Amino acid sequence: MAGWDWNFELTQHSFPLRVYYEDTDFSGVVYHASYLRFLERGRTEFIRACGIDQQKLHRETGVYFVVRRMEIDWIKPALMDDELVVETAPATLRGASMILSQRILRGDEVLTTAEVVVAILKDGRPTRLPDSFRAAFGPS
Amino acid sequence: MAGWDWNFELTQHSFPLRVYYEDTDFSGVVYHASYLRFLERGRTEFIRACGIDQQKLHRETGVYFVVRRMEIDWIKPALMDDELVVETAPATLRGASMILSQRILRGDEVLTTAEVVVAILKDGRPTRLPDSFRAAFGPS
Amino acid sequence: MAGWDWNFELTQHSFPLRVYYEDTDFSGVVYHASYLRFLERGRTEFIRACGIDQQKLHRETGVYFVVRRMEIDWIKPALMDDELVVETAPATLRGASMILSQRILRGDEVLTTAEVVVAILKDGRPTRLPDSFRAAFGPS
Amino acid sequence: MAGWDWNFELTQHSFPLRVYYEDTDFSGVVYHASYLRFLERGRTEFIRACGIDQQKLHRETGVYFVVRRMEIDWIKPALMDDELVVETAPATLRGASMILSQRILRGDEVLTTAEVVVAILKDGRPTRLPDSFRAAFGPS
Repeated sequence: MAGWDWNFELTQHSFPLRVYYEDTDFSGVVYHASYLRFLERGRTEFIRACGIDQQKLHRETGVYFVVRRMEIDWIKPALMDDELVVETAPATLRGASMILSQRILRGDEVLTTAEVVVAILKDGRPTRLPDSFRAAFGPS
Repeated sequence: MAGWDWNFELTQHSFPLRVYYEDTDFSGVVYHASYLRFLERGRTEFIRACGIDQQKLHRETGVYFVVRRMEIDWIKPALMDDELVVETAPATLRGASMILSQRILRGDEVLTTAEVVVAILKDGRPTRLPDSFRAAFGPS
Repeated sequence: MAGWDWNFELTQHSFPLRVYYEDTDFSGVVYHASYLRFLERGRTEFIRACGIDQQKLHRETGVYFVVRRMEIDWIKPALMDDELVVETAPATLRGASMILSQRILRGDEVLTTAEVVVAILKDGRPTRLPDSFRAAFGPS
Repeated sequence: MAGWDWNFELTQHSFPLRVYYEDTDFSGVVYHASYLRFLERGRTEFIRACGIDQQKLHRETGVYFVVRRMEIDWIKPALMDDELVVETAPATLRGASMILSQRILRGDEVLTTAEVVVAILKDGRPTRLPDSFRAAFGPS
């Protein structure tokens, strides 16, 4: 519904990364929780690409982001030395949260998909994103 | 349905752990992906408590476990020095997968809940858990 | 020199831990940086065993500890499921730093040794440990 | 002694990286063991830049690298969002080991320095690097 859900200016963001020793486990492939670190790097760079400085946002307004919920599917494993891409496609900006659709790819192969609910908080309570920052995510 | 879903012998497993520096991030609380490391420790100890030696299972039968899907809710943050408990309650043992319900608690407070789908694989393909090990999870 | 170096009350501290998936890498053994996480857990528990609450220390006096230097030798690898012990033997408490000798063992085997210099800081500058806490480390 | 120590073709290698949430701890700065992950990424990229494919090396010759010893000084802390550079300067290639000098910088500031001894192993025993790969590190 117009005026309820916000569309993001940046409809698709891609962030490349490399797999290192630290990301793998003794099964020979990437450790399952490492993908969450990759997804978080992708979200951080997506927010930066929107023109939002998270530290400045927190310093000036007290507002910060917290991951509240995730549905994640590990489809194929990534391997040492792999070059991956984290795609972040913003789905919805609600009053005090946003939903992001993320994927981790190796070339054309989709290795992981995740739907991530990020809460917008101030002093530990849900809050609206300040308008000046809200604009970064695009028009209503 | 009887004969389809298996009940686990061990209906509830609790694993205590402590939060250290390594688990936290600069926001002051535990990093969101650290909870997945905690949950994995809980699953490893649950399987060990069932009498299954994962390395022996793999060596003798080629069978191993892989996390395939997770729905996770981060409800309240854990803090440095916290003493937590990871609860693992097996829900279902299917042909080639099992579903585990997990919670992370601090005293009576539920901090995190997760429903975890674990695939049973051999040479990268779904397989039945060998009967000798299957027995460890209890009668049909 | 007597009166310069302080002896610690607790001359040897042992902390047990288990190796999990998260600690290993695709080479099949524990990732080299994971041993630093193990050593840090050992130091945290050593300081706790001395009766010092690091968070209270920081809150009441502004004082905190920072690792400044480490000489570390990786001698033999630890493996998945290993039960290890981190030994922490305080060597010296100087004005604004302490030196700790640490070892990681699997049974009688020494896997890792480290000499760790920990600085005592307040507002980012070297400081003396407050006497009330200093007492926890034993008589001069 | 000439003919004993080898000089590396690549006398200085720089690798840029960004600090993310995962790298920090609740003290507000980068966790001390995270710097070892950064240094390891730098060494991996240094070896790749020398034209050596570590996985191919292991597959074709059974040879692999292991960190044996490190002297590391943490001088100044890195912060969330920092853009860092890992410098890797090979010092010496001996019979069955090499010594690397590494630094982590933020602009002109040196945050961390490390001298790292890397062993060259085959079946768990010290070995000479095969000549075909040895050439990658430069002339004798």
